[in-house]
Amino acid sequence: MTGADQGINPLTGQSVGRPVPHTDAAGVTAATAAARAAAPEWAALAPTRRAEILDAVAAALEAARAELVPLADAETALGEARLAGEVTRTRVQWAMFADALREGSHLDVVIDRADPAALPAPRPDLRRMMVPLGPVAVYAASNFPFAFSVPGGDTVSALAAGCPVVVKAHPGHPGLSARVGRIVADALRDAGAPDGVFAVVHGFEAGRALVTDPNITAAAFTGSLAGGRALFDLAAGRPDPIPFYGELGSLNPTVVTAAAVAARGDELAAGFVGSMTLGAGQFCTKPGLLFLPAGHGLDDRLADAVGTAEVGPLLDERIADGFRRGTDALAKVPGVRPLATGAAASGDGWHVPVRLFAVSAADLAAHADEALHECFGPAGLVVEYADDAQLLAALSAVPGALTATLHAEPDDALGPVLLDFMAARAGRVIWGGWPTGVAVTWAMQHGGPWPATTAPLHTSVGVTAVRRFLRPVVYQGVPDALLPPALRDDNPWGLPRRVNGSLLKSGENPI
Amino acid sequence: MTGADQGINPLTGQSVGRPVPHTDAAGVTAATAAARAAAPEWAALAPTRRAEILDAVAAALEAARAELVPLADAETALGEARLAGEVTRTRVQWAMFADALREGSHLDVVIDRADPAALPAPRPDLRRMMVPLGPVAVYAASNFPFAFSVPGGDTVSALAAGCPVVVKAHPGHPGLSARVGRIVADALRDAGAPDGVFAVVHGFEAGRALVTDPNITAAAFTGSLAGGRALFDLAAGRPDPIPFYGELGSLNPTVVTAAAVAARGDELAAGFVGSMTLGAGQFCTKPGLLFLPAGHGLDDRLADAVGTAEVGPLLDERIADGFRRGTDALAKVPGVRPLATGAAASGDGWHVPVRLFAVSAADLAAHADEALHECFGPAGLVVEYADDAQLLAALSAVPGALTATLHAEPDDALGPVLLDFMAARAGRVIWGGWPTGVAVTWAMQHGGPWPATTAPLHTSVGVTAVRRFLRPVVYQGVPDALLPPALRDDNPWGLPRRVNGSLLKSGENPI
Repeated sequence: MTGADQGINPLTGQSVGRPVPHTDAAGVTAATAAARAAAPEWAALAPTRRAEILDAVAAALEAARAELVPLADAETALGEARLAGEVTRTRVQWAMFADALREGSHLDVVIDRADPAALPAPRPDLRRMMVPLGPVAVYAASNFPFAFSVPGGDTVSALAAGCPVVVKAHPGHPGLSARVGRIVADALRDAGAPDGVFAVVHGFEAGRALVTDPNITAAAFTGSLAGGRALFDLAAGRPDPIPFYGELGSLNPTVVTAAAVAARGDELAAGFVGSMTLGAGQFCTKPGLLFLPAGHGLDDRLADAVGTAEVGPLLDERIADGFRRGTDALAKVPGVRPLATGAAASGDGWHVPVRLFAVSAADLAAHADEALHECFGPAGLVVEYADDAQLLAALSAVPGALTATLHAEPDDALGPVLLDFMAARAGRVIWGGWPTGVAVTWAMQHGGPWPATTAPLHTSVGVTAVRRFLRPVVYQGVPDALLPPALRDDNPWGLPRRVNGSLLKSGENPI
Repeated sequence: MTGADQGINPLTGQSVGRPVPHTDAAGVTAATAAARAAAPEWAALAPTRRAEILDAVAAALEAARAELVPLADAETALGEARLAGEVTRTRVQWAMFADALREGSHLDVVIDRADPAALPAPRPDLRRMMVPLGPVAVYAASNFPFAFSVPGGDTVSALAAGCPVVVKAHPGHPGLSARVGRIVADALRDAGAPDGVFAVVHGFEAGRALVTDPNITAAAFTGSLAGGRALFDLAAGRPDPIPFYGELGSLNPTVVTAAAVAARGDELAAGFVGSMTLGAGQFCTKPGLLFLPAGHGLDDRLADAVGTAEVGPLLDERIADGFRRGTDALAKVPGVRPLATGAAASGDGWHVPVRLFAVSAADLAAHADEALHECFGPAGLVVEYADDAQLLAALSAVPGALTATLHAEPDDALGPVLLDFMAARAGRVIWGGWPTGVAVTWAMQHGGPWPATTAPLHTSVGVTAVRRFLRPVVYQGVPDALLPPALRDDNPWGLPRRVNGSLLKSGENPI
């Protein structure tokens, strides 16, 4: 028997739309086989041609904005303003990868001409470029129903790389997932992409089947530590292990120095609570730990901010239950005290109160295993440190993170030490800002050491996310006429290349 | 009780030198703790300073050549000429990574200036660079006692990245490993590297302990499928999984078209056997499969080449036993016939006869699971195809490979199809050459889809091998004076950078 995913309005707990049936095993196999069949044609398209197709999808998403935002709001209650911004962000991501394909550096072309004088032996002509891995499984997240879901960054970066994609929809917004899946599939087909290059499947069992399917060559995931670990283990346990790019959990430590408290403590307290409660605390970049000097005097200000924070319901019942369990467990850790609790939740849906706790750095270090877990939702822990040594010891106990943030004064003696500490433990180091909000650019790094991700070398946001789905191939001694266009002497695609060790931009390719 | 590794001369089966004691658990822990302690200082060195230190090691290896080559020959019997060439190659690798550090593109600096007009939201100043992962475990191979062993490509690429290294020595050449380990450690220390940046451990249990040690952040391995899979599983099964770069096994298919047989069949037969028997067939790039058109008429020529091949003993008893088992099993696969067997082995050591088999493409396709295993040593399988469809079907059954080679005429109709087929299944595609011999350059790709490697995105040879040990960190809004030198406006290290999406070479950094 096959089940179904039912959309639920988080404000009310009531059903929204019709149930979306789970994909059965035959459906998963059909989707991956079609993806495999589409792979050579999709891979062989010139990058500029794939760019046109990505732009067409961006236009289709924009054209459907008025239909999609209310549909997403009904299933997530994230609010139309936030969701409208997310549609923009998603569209911008498709356009960004289209632009990157036109520039062409993702192909990372490296040419070493033959050299009879090379040591230890004469060297043949060698020409290296990136090729797509093959069909990719994408596991959608609940908390960004556009930007990290069916049409999100994992999907578009894999398609940009030249890989077909099969998305496993998140059960939190099944109606939206099915509808967006249709829009993306239609736009790809109408723009000339091969059949089978994109599909959406639904259901937990479909997700398990996908990561072990022989036609799948890599997987990308955004979600919980437990869910990501289970899928990672399946990927690594295959007869033929595949890369698994999981973005899991992160505490996103934020450190405030005494000088920064003195300069603008009130503003920082309000800023922290604002970032911690944004999107009801359901961002992977939510600052979950705030390191403050002992005697900071900001308790009242923090409590005020918690009391006045306007926070919507959580996304689904599972997340709401997890939040209650996680915060209750945190409250019982020795030395942890409640600092502030938000207004009692109202309504019938998945509302929870904001909860802020405090602990001394010494107690945190003594109970790190119990205290240092991500509570997905509007919760945070203030860590009070007596001196620099306590701060560094407590920071050392924090597991790998997506981000680490420092609020300090430019002449703080500990500033450089803290920045180095943070760079060794996180993928993004922020000065004087807040970690929520992830720019979609060339430089962005959204990743980090375990347990922030399963793959610390990579990012799931920004142009370089495409690298997760490309592998190098070198051609040795192949006649020019038989080489792929990217590697030919005359550089018909105008790519930036490295030739005999020197970087050449697209305008200067004197081979 | 702790055991020891005893060097054995493969020509005689007699002991060479003194036993080298296995490293006990405390010894492994001490080595990884020292590596962890050395990591920040080693990581913080300017790339040009690390380059000087790598050059010092290159010089030390060169200076010890006269001592090391006979030591290696006594434990491996690979011959002084081959081993002298390998010392050169190893020295060249250290110098190549030193040069790459001076160029600086391994830091992959990307800068996006703040942009208040960015969509979907104003963008902060973002500056991304690569940082070292931390201590790396390197598992040495037996078949290249220098180039893929203690001072080999994995070691130098990890050190170049800024990662301390703990090498697990191969038991096939324990005396050489200990001696080279001393030379490398001394050269690093004398050149100013921090204590603990490099160590060598010995013994099977030490190897298992290393990959699960909490201080180890990545591992690199060259060796057998079974050994690599076992270590990969340990790495993936850690509470905190780490990247595992295993280069395992490869059949390295070689295809000859009918036109190429007509043009130079005799030469190709001799060339194939020469490549297959080079180093007694103990190269990971050994061509193990030769696809020939049915009725090729080269049996006699192949048999002549096998009969006259001069092949030394295998490296150790385990490899010799594996070769006998593997070739005996291949001989029993339905449809497989012996094509030629070399002269009976002489002497008391690990000599084996060259063995060449043949099978029809149809029989191969029917028994792919039994026939398509790497036989490490001087063995090969000729696959005879009746037509293009049979050739492509048989090629499709070959697992992922390090290399794939095509001997064709430039106007062969199937040439482009075969090259595409090969690029989809291998890391290096060779036209008109032989896969043994791996140039050490910018463009080289020594890797491939499973089971060739555990990490198809990466290479273990060539400049880009350094990427395995680097992860990105982005700095957001950090004041210029507090940024790492690589990211500062004035670009004190003269690095190539990408700024606001445009590639800039080191001479043009107008920030």
